[in-house]
Amino acid sequence: MLTIVEKFGGTSVGSVERIKAVAEHIAKKRALGERIVVVVSAMSGETNRLIALAHDLSESPSPREMDVLISTGEQVTIALLAMALHEYGVKAKSYTGSQVSIRTDNVYSKARIVDIDGQRIVDDLNDDTVVVVAGFQGSNEKGEITTLGRGGSDTTAVALAAAIKADECRIYTDVDGIYTTDPRVVPEARRLDRITAEEMLEMASLGAKVLQTRSVEFANKYKVPLRVLSSFEDGPGTLIHYDQEGDPMEAPLISGIASQRDEAKLTIRRIPDQPGVAHKVLGPVSAAHINVDVIIQNASEKGFTDLTFTVPRPDFKACKKILEQLVIDLGAQDIRTDEEIAKVSIVGVGMRSHTGVAHLMFQTLAENDINILMISTSEIKVSVIISEEQHDLAVQSLHRAFELHKF
Amino acid sequence: MLTIVEKFGGTSVGSVERIKAVAEHIAKKRALGERIVVVVSAMSGETNRLIALAHDLSESPSPREMDVLISTGEQVTIALLAMALHEYGVKAKSYTGSQVSIRTDNVYSKARIVDIDGQRIVDDLNDDTVVVVAGFQGSNEKGEITTLGRGGSDTTAVALAAAIKADECRIYTDVDGIYTTDPRVVPEARRLDRITAEEMLEMASLGAKVLQTRSVEFANKYKVPLRVLSSFEDGPGTLIHYDQEGDPMEAPLISGIASQRDEAKLTIRRIPDQPGVAHKVLGPVSAAHINVDVIIQNASEKGFTDLTFTVPRPDFKACKKILEQLVIDLGAQDIRTDEEIAKVSIVGVGMRSHTGVAHLMFQTLAENDINILMISTSEIKVSVIISEEQHDLAVQSLHRAFELHKF
Repeated sequence: MLTIVEKFGGTSVGSVERIKAVAEHIAKKRALGERIVVVVSAMSGETNRLIALAHDLSESPSPREMDVLISTGEQVTIALLAMALHEYGVKAKSYTGSQVSIRTDNVYSKARIVDIDGQRIVDDLNDDTVVVVAGFQGSNEKGEITTLGRGGSDTTAVALAAAIKADECRIYTDVDGIYTTDPRVVPEARRLDRITAEEMLEMASLGAKVLQTRSVEFANKYKVPLRVLSSFEDGPGTLIHYDQEGDPMEAPLISGIASQRDEAKLTIRRIPDQPGVAHKVLGPVSAAHINVDVIIQNASEKGFTDLTFTVPRPDFKACKKILEQLVIDLGAQDIRTDEEIAKVSIVGVGMRSHTGVAHLMFQTLAENDINILMISTSEIKVSVIISEEQHDLAVQSLHRAFELHKF
Repeated sequence: MLTIVEKFGGTSVGSVERIKAVAEHIAKKRALGERIVVVVSAMSGETNRLIALAHDLSESPSPREMDVLISTGEQVTIALLAMALHEYGVKAKSYTGSQVSIRTDNVYSKARIVDIDGQRIVDDLNDDTVVVVAGFQGSNEKGEITTLGRGGSDTTAVALAAAIKADECRIYTDVDGIYTTDPRVVPEARRLDRITAEEMLEMASLGAKVLQTRSVEFANKYKVPLRVLSSFEDGPGTLIHYDQEGDPMEAPLISGIASQRDEAKLTIRRIPDQPGVAHKVLGPVSAAHINVDVIIQNASEKGFTDLTFTVPRPDFKACKKILEQLVIDLGAQDIRTDEEIAKVSIVGVGMRSHTGVAHLMFQTLAENDINILMISTSEIKVSVIISEEQHDLAVQSLHRAFELHKF
């Protein structure tokens, strides 16, 4: 019998009717003999409602208490879904993250899973029970409630799948799979049947918002077969696989175009050059749990260096504050910032065996008068930072240039 | 330094503004040097909102899942109150019932506390931290969430006060103390400064709805000084004490009149008489967690007996179903029911030393043409069951007859 972890996000459980639909879906899968663990998010809107309550009380509420507060959102959903499953005659039990021993570190609101004891879940599965688990949450070694940050329910699902050695982890979303790029930007964008985990990792981390990066990393680490499907319509979705076989020459030039609008760029200028400058600047930023993305260091003048990097726009202000202190501490000249940038990336394992991929990208952008502010490359992707207002034009022209609609 | 447990109900924390007011109140108490544990209920309306969601999904939702669902109500409040306390510069930490080891039995939705480990709370108090605990909830030995039933937050507060040996447990409510009777029925009703726990127990169990019976039982068992106060205005409230000293002849004839409207009466008629009839009838009723109140057994005819008892009206239908089966099993004749009855009781330790108290009650009711359906007495109370429509008249005329407005 297949053991499956299925994850439904906030929109999929956003109303009593949607919860009933999910229960009916699970009942059908049960009838096929699948052993099922369901991971659910808070009903859509609920998390924001709770956050608004907190902000009515405090400008910067305690992260510990925020986690106590917003973890109730998923707890409501698990109970309701278990009740709905009972109505379909399906044995089901709900558990909070803490109850199924999802142990995390102590970083409230952005905790990382350190361990899961899957025994309780396996016992229930052996007892023909569907196990409904609250996504997005766990508890630290003191038993205090923690949350994994936005999108953390995907990570919960993958981590549970790894812990109980599930045959597949299915993430139900509001899209029917992974596309060559955002169909809202490029109407001819095409659903991919399969994508390697490596490519998906680049796509996810680059802002293809279907799956949270950490969940793909987790899946990749434990080789959990991961499938992205629509919760609203039937279909095969996109399978994220670990199969490195097949003729690489057969692979398409690139698999997709990822992009990210909400980025900001910061430059700290004329830092007196010394060993470890990048570490001294980025250490404090990282300690504030801000994810730095593209980094460029450039010795502008003898004895001095400039360091430029991008961060998610919501972290911009906090990051700027840190740099202002660093200008003083390191004796740098000043800071320059740009809050209206976007990142556009082409991704594909095909790059390994095809040459000229980056060149075609730069040529296409040049032909469309798009100015490249920063470039970053990896083995299977090329990213450029551009002005946010040219985001759509860049994605559309690249999709055409790489003939992604054709495959 | 005094160690105090303070409990605020749903109305007292019913909005962000009310939560701020509670936080301000606690901050003032902290400034006076009190060590404080706060127990809170769900924001008013929240529990009903959650119950409505459940009933949209299921006519009789699983009690286990109901407890997972509605326990989120208090969890939201504890986090918000802790945040509000931080804004007043007060160190505070929130805990769910499970997190502070409030161990209960397995009766979902009506669980009873079996044990509390107060160490974590004491550690926090020693660290100058206000401890905010979710009322109404705990967890069983498997770590599954349980709730204590309506009003259970009072019980949580008293049980915590007993566990940490607090100097006083203060229950903040929407009234400013215990009254001689319901002021909505008798405008001249008067607030009592003090009442013995014994009297309070009779008042509470008889439906003076200010405090939940179980909380008073708990307080009485562990001799926790309990004070009922208004959360909206300053005042001394009513202290529930264990002082049996003083001249009993000085005590007023009765202390108060308790009444309960939502009762129902059931009679199972002509049961073939045999030892243990009451046990055979009431055993299954009790097993269904229905609280039987007044019980009368009467051998109506040689060889047969009638058994009449009252139950809370919400349990009436379930109870009737049980009796219908028992009529068959025991070979009884039939069932008679009355769903529109009320109970009115006079309560007072003064009864012990004064005679004629019951007589004055019966005389007063007779003068007002109120028909008594059942009578039940204890050492410090006399209760009568009457038609519900005569409830107000009975309470008003008794309050006058016993001159309760005068003391």
